[in-house]
Amino acid sequence: MDMIWIVPVVGIATVLFAAGLAWNVLKRDSGTPEMQRIAGMIFEGAMAFLRRQYQTIAMLSVVTAVVVGLIVGYFDESVRTGVLTGVAFMIGAICSAIAGFIGMYVSVKSNGRCASAATRSLREAVAVSLRGGAVSGFLVVALSLLGVATLFAVYSRLLGNTMEDTPFLIVGFGFGASFVALFAQLGGGIYTKAADVGADLVGKVEAGIPEDDPRNAAVIADLVGDNVGDCAGRGADLFESTAAENIGAMILGVVIFQFTGNSNWILFPLVIRAFGLIATGIGIMSVPFFTREKQDPMTPLNYGYYVITALSIAFMALVTKIMMGDKWHWFFFSGLVGIGTSVVFVYITQYYTSGRWRPVKEIADASRTGPATNIIIGTAVGFETTLSTALAISVALVASFILGEKSDLPNGGVFGTAVATMGMLMSAAYILSMDTFGPITDNANGIIEMAGAPPEARDITDSLDAVGNTTKALTKGYAMASAGLAAFLLFSAFLDKVKEHFAKDEGSIYFGKPLQEIPFPVDISGVAPFVAALLGVMLVFLFSSLAIRAVGQTAGKIIEEVRRQFREDPGIMAGTSRPDYARAVDITARAALKGMMAPGLLVVGAPVVVGIIFRLIYKADLLGSGPSSSMAATVGAGGPESVAALLMVGTIGGVILATFFNNVGGAWDNAKKYIEAGLLKVPAEGGGEEVLGKGTDAHKAAVVGDTVGDPFKDTAGPSLHVLVKLLSTVTLVLAPLFIS
Amino acid sequence: MDMIWIVPVVGIATVLFAAGLAWNVLKRDSGTPEMQRIAGMIFEGAMAFLRRQYQTIAMLSVVTAVVVGLIVGYFDESVRTGVLTGVAFMIGAICSAIAGFIGMYVSVKSNGRCASAATRSLREAVAVSLRGGAVSGFLVVALSLLGVATLFAVYSRLLGNTMEDTPFLIVGFGFGASFVALFAQLGGGIYTKAADVGADLVGKVEAGIPEDDPRNAAVIADLVGDNVGDCAGRGADLFESTAAENIGAMILGVVIFQFTGNSNWILFPLVIRAFGLIATGIGIMSVPFFTREKQDPMTPLNYGYYVITALSIAFMALVTKIMMGDKWHWFFFSGLVGIGTSVVFVYITQYYTSGRWRPVKEIADASRTGPATNIIIGTAVGFETTLSTALAISVALVASFILGEKSDLPNGGVFGTAVATMGMLMSAAYILSMDTFGPITDNANGIIEMAGAPPEARDITDSLDAVGNTTKALTKGYAMASAGLAAFLLFSAFLDKVKEHFAKDEGSIYFGKPLQEIPFPVDISGVAPFVAALLGVMLVFLFSSLAIRAVGQTAGKIIEEVRRQFREDPGIMAGTSRPDYARAVDITARAALKGMMAPGLLVVGAPVVVGIIFRLIYKADLLGSGPSSSMAATVGAGGPESVAALLMVGTIGGVILATFFNNVGGAWDNAKKYIEAGLLKVPAEGGGEEVLGKGTDAHKAAVVGDTVGDPFKDTAGPSLHVLVKLLSTVTLVLAPLFIS
Repeated sequence: MDMIWIVPVVGIATVLFAAGLAWNVLKRDSGTPEMQRIAGMIFEGAMAFLRRQYQTIAMLSVVTAVVVGLIVGYFDESVRTGVLTGVAFMIGAICSAIAGFIGMYVSVKSNGRCASAATRSLREAVAVSLRGGAVSGFLVVALSLLGVATLFAVYSRLLGNTMEDTPFLIVGFGFGASFVALFAQLGGGIYTKAADVGADLVGKVEAGIPEDDPRNAAVIADLVGDNVGDCAGRGADLFESTAAENIGAMILGVVIFQFTGNSNWILFPLVIRAFGLIATGIGIMSVPFFTREKQDPMTPLNYGYYVITALSIAFMALVTKIMMGDKWHWFFFSGLVGIGTSVVFVYITQYYTSGRWRPVKEIADASRTGPATNIIIGTAVGFETTLSTALAISVALVASFILGEKSDLPNGGVFGTAVATMGMLMSAAYILSMDTFGPITDNANGIIEMAGAPPEARDITDSLDAVGNTTKALTKGYAMASAGLAAFLLFSAFLDKVKEHFAKDEGSIYFGKPLQEIPFPVDISGVAPFVAALLGVMLVFLFSSLAIRAVGQTAGKIIEEVRRQFREDPGIMAGTSRPDYARAVDITARAALKGMMAPGLLVVGAPVVVGIIFRLIYKADLLGSGPSSSMAATVGAGGPESVAALLMVGTIGGVILATFFNNVGGAWDNAKKYIEAGLLKVPAEGGGEEVLGKGTDAHKAAVVGDTVGDPFKDTAGPSLHVLVKLLSTVTLVLAPLFIS
Repeated sequence: MDMIWIVPVVGIATVLFAAGLAWNVLKRDSGTPEMQRIAGMIFEGAMAFLRRQYQTIAMLSVVTAVVVGLIVGYFDESVRTGVLTGVAFMIGAICSAIAGFIGMYVSVKSNGRCASAATRSLREAVAVSLRGGAVSGFLVVALSLLGVATLFAVYSRLLGNTMEDTPFLIVGFGFGASFVALFAQLGGGIYTKAADVGADLVGKVEAGIPEDDPRNAAVIADLVGDNVGDCAGRGADLFESTAAENIGAMILGVVIFQFTGNSNWILFPLVIRAFGLIATGIGIMSVPFFTREKQDPMTPLNYGYYVITALSIAFMALVTKIMMGDKWHWFFFSGLVGIGTSVVFVYITQYYTSGRWRPVKEIADASRTGPATNIIIGTAVGFETTLSTALAISVALVASFILGEKSDLPNGGVFGTAVATMGMLMSAAYILSMDTFGPITDNANGIIEMAGAPPEARDITDSLDAVGNTTKALTKGYAMASAGLAAFLLFSAFLDKVKEHFAKDEGSIYFGKPLQEIPFPVDISGVAPFVAALLGVMLVFLFSSLAIRAVGQTAGKIIEEVRRQFREDPGIMAGTSRPDYARAVDITARAALKGMMAPGLLVVGAPVVVGIIFRLIYKADLLGSGPSSSMAATVGAGGPESVAALLMVGTIGGVILATFFNNVGGAWDNAKKYIEAGLLKVPAEGGGEEVLGKGTDAHKAAVVGDTVGDPFKDTAGPSLHVLVKLLSTVTLVLAPLFIS
């Protein structure tokens, strides 16, 4: 049965749904004039940063699109392929930028309204922040779906490419999307954490004034940062995730299409994503039904997630049964594995980053002997979290592969892992909504503080802010797990892409063969792939180094500026004159954009350089042809095999390191909160218990850990998710370069 | 020409040379009665720890030897092979333990004599500490050479195994050596850093008394720690390095032997190691000729190293020319690459850990804004150091492979990397001598402080201590680089071992074939090897987590004990009564030994479990047989291929992570020293410059970084070197388990 019609219908319906939510939020009261003034400053700062950032990214994107088009066209010896790839790249880049922009626009328009709502009731504040978040969550996923589907339709129906060629032609879309997402996430991540660290160090530590105090010149930059990092960055990130994984899964479907002649195998990823949107829409609408007065705001959010999980299972059964013929149940089981993995990661993240369990308590306890032991034990806990993450990803991959293999279709195992990834990503729009919830409530909190609103309102936004911290941690766990699961899918697509090149090359011995009969092992016992694998792991460490250092350097610039303002205008500290917020915003933006260039270009350049070098070494016949070398007579020999090894092992390194960054940052953050909540107790000298709370040495030690964790969890970690996928898409698109 | 006679001659001559050095050191004056008393306490504490540690290790080793013998015997269907492997394991374990013991014994006997010599002259103090270090350095390398050579001679000549079978039978020796080395390095590393961190936190930070103050009950434990960690641990580590790499290289030589019929290819590693010992002996004897009064003690040490490098090049030319026939020059060039790599690493380590260059200055500068920025920038610098390390290893591997491949011999490329490793390790005895130099001078420093010797003596040992810090950092860089270079050699040996199994199996289609014609790709595009690779990287993170946490927990125990002693006997602080040093030593030892169990067993168990699981999945035919899966018809299918992927990618992760740990620890340490030396300056308020020296907030921040770096650079980092090699040897020996 042809189900593809559902894709445009659901896509457009979702856009309308999001527009409705946006209208609902924007028509609300935007608060007192003072709130409006502050929200206005945040809006202007965020827009100014985005404008400048997008100028840089646009320039880089146009250059890259042209270069990519030329490379693909030249090495594939087809002007048409080059042009189509370059155009797909630009469309992907533009859509990704729009997704980031929308996410941020709605967020900075919702924060003041959330602050205003908080002066009235918790319930209304939840409604505003959740709806504001949902606008971005749903639009991003719908745009990704519509973008891929439209491009597919245009390239296949209008431009007359075959069903099996088209997925290979639209990979440029994924590359363009990842390209923009990397810079958006990097620039935004550096901005947000540099502003946060800088504002804290110069305000809380040096000047002794509270967080979000209006006398601190960096405070607006800090509030802007939450938007440009968490909203714009994460929006672009999840846009490219869903796009790249859709395209990768479609490529894997080509092999089964060649065997069965049924195009459903190529279209399945689009259809299941559409059903995911339906499930998520119903889920988010169900949240108000679970909302009670005086309740932990996390509870209804959890119920909404359960509704989505149940619906996802039902839809997965429906779609696989209709589209996949008599072997559907194996892929349904693979999909179940993916949906289950998503639930498992929600629990893993909570275990490691919530104050209720051992890890955070251990770190809080270690703070008693100072910052050094806080960092040492925190590092040990962070490293430990890689165990459960790696095991969960491993079990999910092997199980979904085995289930897919049971179908007896060619490439069935790999397609099984793709279905699992699709299953996991069915709830993406909901997760992204919850993620955007975080910065909205955080900003509302800051606006209330700065506008001097009544303390009851502050209590409400404080409780929402705590929920926002949890949802942000969950999103990172989810994004990381889906990146790990998707990695296998994406580099399997790379292998297929290389094989496709040989299948279409008349001079090749594989001309006209089905892809699954073309050999392409990635043999890391060969010296070239082994060295490439080593460089791949090094790459993620070097990238993290550059990202973390950029935060440190940008924070240094902010600190200097705030100090200068304090020094040159004593009226600021006295509260008689206002600091120059705009200047601090401007300086942060400039430094953050400078900081994003080196790590961004490194990731795009490294696989290209490694691929070309090993291709040249191979062409010069320097590596011999023993069975243990990489030079067996396969299509991967030389460049592609080395690039694949860099990609695969670099991905492994990236997933493990990102797990460490995300979890250790969250754990340090919550160890600090644990102490602030008065939960750290020691036996007192005279018997009984003494609480080591705010202001004690233990608390100061925990603040050090929290500050160290900031660039880990909000700059390096999220950027690594994008890096992992960008590595895949850049090699996918540039495959012809490594072969010829 | 038969050159093998040189091995026993040089081996025995080296042992006599070391005995002479030991006699020279031991006959010297052992200082004032107070010095003797303190040295005696250190001696007793160290011996007590070693006794207890060796009891545990002995128990584990006997059990493991029996299990290994049974597994190999059962799965290889040969009682004889099982017994020979088990016996080789026990001999390796015993030799490794002896090497560790000797290293420590001489060190704890030299420290008091060095302290005594320092009261007389710098020159004599240098002589004592260098000779004491050399005893250990030379004995360890000579023992390793003699052990492998004797076992080879006995197994081939006395027991009648063929030249090509014997290397496979003696792999148990390497496993036994690594097994003991891992526990020795882990237990010693946990002990030394827990004592260091604990003594500092409770003494310098809490009680406000200086380092090595006799009122601190943990001070003897701290001095003992230097010996059990740096001497006993590092001795066992380098013993197993040289042994495992010799055996691995001999296995690689088997393939060329099968082709040429010349046994020189198997014996070469032993002969070149013997010549390395000659070069090192001459080098160390040349040091006094370069020694001048009032000179940086590092200068003559550097000249000695240049002498060794020059001699190594000459001997490499000589030995390759005599043993390798008309293609000798290609392998000579490979050897040059290895010798050059060793020099490159000396410079890389210095650049990243010395106060003269950008990295350490950057960290010192970041300390101005507190401990958080010190840790953030330190982490960025540490991650950055993986770049030069990975590039240097990559270039060395590819270059030596290409050169070896030029010889047109089967396996020539891989053998080229083995020759490079051998070239790098020619100077091992010298490096190890310089490493043991460190703890001897460190201890002498402590003894002088505690015995209240004159300040001039303290100045001398202070300057020696600084040199010791440099040589310790160099050793770690060297050990890490050689581990990276050797890794490729070791898992190539694993592949050969699996192939050998099939070549000897009458039921196999590869029966009787030369090894290089048996296919065994390690294809990480298959789901099983990919997952195994993911688990491999996770393994090194989890191992590091356990090791670092053990330091934190043990330090906590020490802090409690010292606090208890201060509380219960106020006379300690007043200086009227002595603390109970022995109890602190005992508590540290017990906690350290407990802490070493989990990470140690994890490393041995993980590859076994992964190998068996994937073997079972393969046997149940669950993974299909597509060309992209791991199930191509090769000898690696299922278990061995997955184990190889775990091993190779785990090694990559281990090398990168160890690089980070070693360098970041050294850089933090020296950033603190940089500030203490008064080199951190800021513009003063009224113009001019202000020095931010000892006691300032910047210094306190740098102390935090230094403390965090302690378990990184002295526990996790060095243990990872051993882990990397243990992974190789455990899989090598247990290969039959993964096949059958």
